[in-house]
Amino acid sequence: MKNLLIASTSTVHGSSYLEYILSDLSEFFKDIDEIIFIPYARPGGISHDEYTAVAQKGFATIGKKIIGLHTFSNPVEALKEAKAVFTGGGNTFLLVTQLYKNDVMAVLRARIFEGMHYFGTSAGANITGLTMQTTNDMPIIYPPSFKTLGAVPFNINPHYLDPDTKSTHKGETRETRIKEFHTINTQPVIGLREGSWLEVKDERIYLRGTLQARIFEQGKEPYEIASGSEVKF
Amino acid sequence: MKNLLIASTSTVHGSSYLEYILSDLSEFFKDIDEIIFIPYARPGGISHDEYTAVAQKGFATIGKKIIGLHTFSNPVEALKEAKAVFTGGGNTFLLVTQLYKNDVMAVLRARIFEGMHYFGTSAGANITGLTMQTTNDMPIIYPPSFKTLGAVPFNINPHYLDPDTKSTHKGETRETRIKEFHTINTQPVIGLREGSWLEVKDERIYLRGTLQARIFEQGKEPYEIASGSEVKF
Repeated sequence: MKNLLIASTSTVHGSSYLEYILSDLSEFFKDIDEIIFIPYARPGGISHDEYTAVAQKGFATIGKKIIGLHTFSNPVEALKEAKAVFTGGGNTFLLVTQLYKNDVMAVLRARIFEGMHYFGTSAGANITGLTMQTTNDMPIIYPPSFKTLGAVPFNINPHYLDPDTKSTHKGETRETRIKEFHTINTQPVIGLREGSWLEVKDERIYLRGTLQARIFEQGKEPYEIASGSEVKF
Repeated sequence: MKNLLIASTSTVHGSSYLEYILSDLSEFFKDIDEIIFIPYARPGGISHDEYTAVAQKGFATIGKKIIGLHTFSNPVEALKEAKAVFTGGGNTFLLVTQLYKNDVMAVLRARIFEGMHYFGTSAGANITGLTMQTTNDMPIIYPPSFKTLGAVPFNINPHYLDPDTKSTHKGETRETRIKEFHTINTQPVIGLREGSWLEVKDERIYLRGTLQARIFEQGKEPYEIASGSEVKF
């Protein structure tokens, strides 16, 4: 019994924060009025308060109350009682470090497996995978482990970016990076383009949004799946 | 007493492996005929043998013998006796993990501080900094530590990439990532564009190549330095 929306990004080009997914969020959270926001990933280094204000503004348009997890004196108890959780993007290394440091990784996982509604964007999407190892972020802090929630049986690469065929840059493409990941790791990876998300309903997982997603399995050529497909390995 | 060349990349657009820097390498290694190559970073997952063959071919044109560190039964002893070392690029997490696992980080550092000639490209450049935390790579393996050689008193961001002002992608720019790094870390960062390198001669450090480099210091606006500048904080 699971209920998750796992989104590549909070914002797509040319629209405001969460705008592209608001009607789906409204449906997803239809029986829920209060959502705990995990601001630990601190995009661009903004404070927990500042980041929570961004989330509050985004959800105000669909009438949801957002409370920052950092405002509770006991975050473990807060998550035990939470009706729903939203984890925002930013730096995945910082997010994972803070989840472990505040001892909330285990309780968050337990609540997700009990069916609590969970929405994550970018870093908050990445952590629903088996490990954070297909993040695009800079390792600005050393986390106690790369293991994450394992709410889905694969890894997520948010903000998936197709190779720029006109580029003269010699840094690795996203596809090369994931290929390097698969020289050492066996789990599949879903490259979620901006504007795509996964809907997890019980044990079934569907690709949503208008775009295709790119699937990477160890020892296979990468391939595309269409929006609406069930994700299965 | 130090002698290092710390290069953003092995290859610039439109030229072959090491071609852009070969005449400088020839001068740098003029009294050295044999160089130990550290292939641990395995770009694209190629084997240590395959990667060493690439380096051998690159250095053959200037008449240098390249020996893979992985071919020695005792890599620590090999580095103690090495006349010079070249560390190639690939995945920095894998490189750092292997340097610790094979117990060679300390001896490599000691030899560099004794004046042994060291050349590094990309990941092999990144590890000359204080920590590997300004790498662009994916965390495909969990290293025992992010601490690196500290041959220079700052961090390196190889393959530095200016923001693409036409991009519609919402993933963080390189500059945003480094800004996030500085919310937690105090050391300066040098963004080395492809085609740039640092020359370290004793305690003096100079920017080489034709391009400017971008400097990031905590709490300051980023700024540019010209080729030929001494790097000092």
